[in-house]
Amino acid sequence: MTIGVFDSGVGGLTVLHALHDELPQVGTAYLGDTARVPYGTRSADTVIKYALNAAQFLSENETLSVLVVACNTASAVAVEELSKTLSVPVVGVIEPTAKHAVKLSNNQKIGVIGTSGTIQSQAYETAIHKLSPDAQTFAKACPLFVPLAEEGWTSPDDPLVCQIVERYLGDLVKEDIDTLILGCTHYPLLASAISKVLPPRIRLADAAQAVAREVAAHSSEEFENEESSRPLRRYYVTDVPKGFVRVAERFLGAAIEKPIEVDL
Amino acid sequence: MTIGVFDSGVGGLTVLHALHDELPQVGTAYLGDTARVPYGTRSADTVIKYALNAAQFLSENETLSVLVVACNTASAVAVEELSKTLSVPVVGVIEPTAKHAVKLSNNQKIGVIGTSGTIQSQAYETAIHKLSPDAQTFAKACPLFVPLAEEGWTSPDDPLVCQIVERYLGDLVKEDIDTLILGCTHYPLLASAISKVLPPRIRLADAAQAVAREVAAHSSEEFENEESSRPLRRYYVTDVPKGFVRVAERFLGAAIEKPIEVDL
Repeated sequence: MTIGVFDSGVGGLTVLHALHDELPQVGTAYLGDTARVPYGTRSADTVIKYALNAAQFLSENETLSVLVVACNTASAVAVEELSKTLSVPVVGVIEPTAKHAVKLSNNQKIGVIGTSGTIQSQAYETAIHKLSPDAQTFAKACPLFVPLAEEGWTSPDDPLVCQIVERYLGDLVKEDIDTLILGCTHYPLLASAISKVLPPRIRLADAAQAVAREVAAHSSEEFENEESSRPLRRYYVTDVPKGFVRVAERFLGAAIEKPIEVDL
Repeated sequence: MTIGVFDSGVGGLTVLHALHDELPQVGTAYLGDTARVPYGTRSADTVIKYALNAAQFLSENETLSVLVVACNTASAVAVEELSKTLSVPVVGVIEPTAKHAVKLSNNQKIGVIGTSGTIQSQAYETAIHKLSPDAQTFAKACPLFVPLAEEGWTSPDDPLVCQIVERYLGDLVKEDIDTLILGCTHYPLLASAISKVLPPRIRLADAAQAVAREVAAHSSEEFENEESSRPLRRYYVTDVPKGFVRVAERFLGAAIEKPIEVDL
């Protein structure tokens, strides 16, 4: 059995990274729709169509036990449709992360950072308010964080990185939040710099870890008999842009096996 | 007669800004394909298809005298195809800017900065070498510059902006270039900060200004009888993202008339 992970590009590799940490013995197959990235600027109908393409591809080519939608945009609009179509559970990034943040927070003042598209969608706020109607949420789009992560400019010892983080998060800190959702799969790469800049009372709710724990919890019985000294690690992409492997390895935190280029 | 200007998003408004400065009496119609931005990650065939859609729309809805393709990606792959289809001249950004840079440079050591897509395409280098076979070119992708411009973090007095510029351009300066092509329509917003960081010997070849002068030169006879106290200023977009008008006005350097949303 294989965990399928689907993202619009490389960002979902941080979720895969967390899954490998949480369930090292289980096989995984990753599909990055790198030819059509980013999804954030597309209509909901288009994103649903792309997500269905991706889910169909993974279902046909792998023996899936669960499909993880490791893309904020697709999670916001396509999880319901995918659940109707697939025979295996579908896990998006938004609900597990919102649940994790609500649990972490003592004062229910929760910050959310993400791309402009995610922040405009208010998907995290909606999910938080379903779980904790009195929670206060404070959201901030951080458009420089994705290119920072892709450039590899992420060190907490880099004054430039810390200045950019400070500029974005200064206002959130003033709002007395005690929990901050990293609402973009690129942001775990900046977690150390973000932690350094924020006061220690603020805890980070990392989507990658939240999703990995959700999958592990749902699947522990199914996976407990799995034993493999060399579990499957398959990587599919719809395009191999220059520098892909270098960026991908930074996100995955490990060497990546040669990606297989496919047409969806 | 109207100058049609087409771009994948808001970046081309810097070219429109330069056109308004150069030919203030002439009417303009701008089309930003904001629903399908960015083009940089799409295949050449797709970009050609989008560019043909856009050109057809502008031809049908305006009395064009010239079509300016104010998008680096579309300029690199679609100008030839557009020229075959349209009955009016088509001006891209790459050739006029390369020509301007070759003229500006004394030592024919020319730097080029742009998005990752533009730099990978080597379109500016190819255009420079056609004009000046012995020229040496030095290229650098600057992925943080687009979000910096869109955030409005562009002041030469902002130490953060200058640090980012320094980090990207430090290596180019060492190569003894005397001319630097701003090969992305977003970059004119950073021109002051770039000039502050670079040694004074390095001159900037700004695509927006180069294109505006090219259009003015080609069209002076056609336009000299044009007189209008309030020339046409029309703005079409394929989507109106949140914050569009604020960003657009920053790029245009003036108040923008209400954009008309269209389907291509």
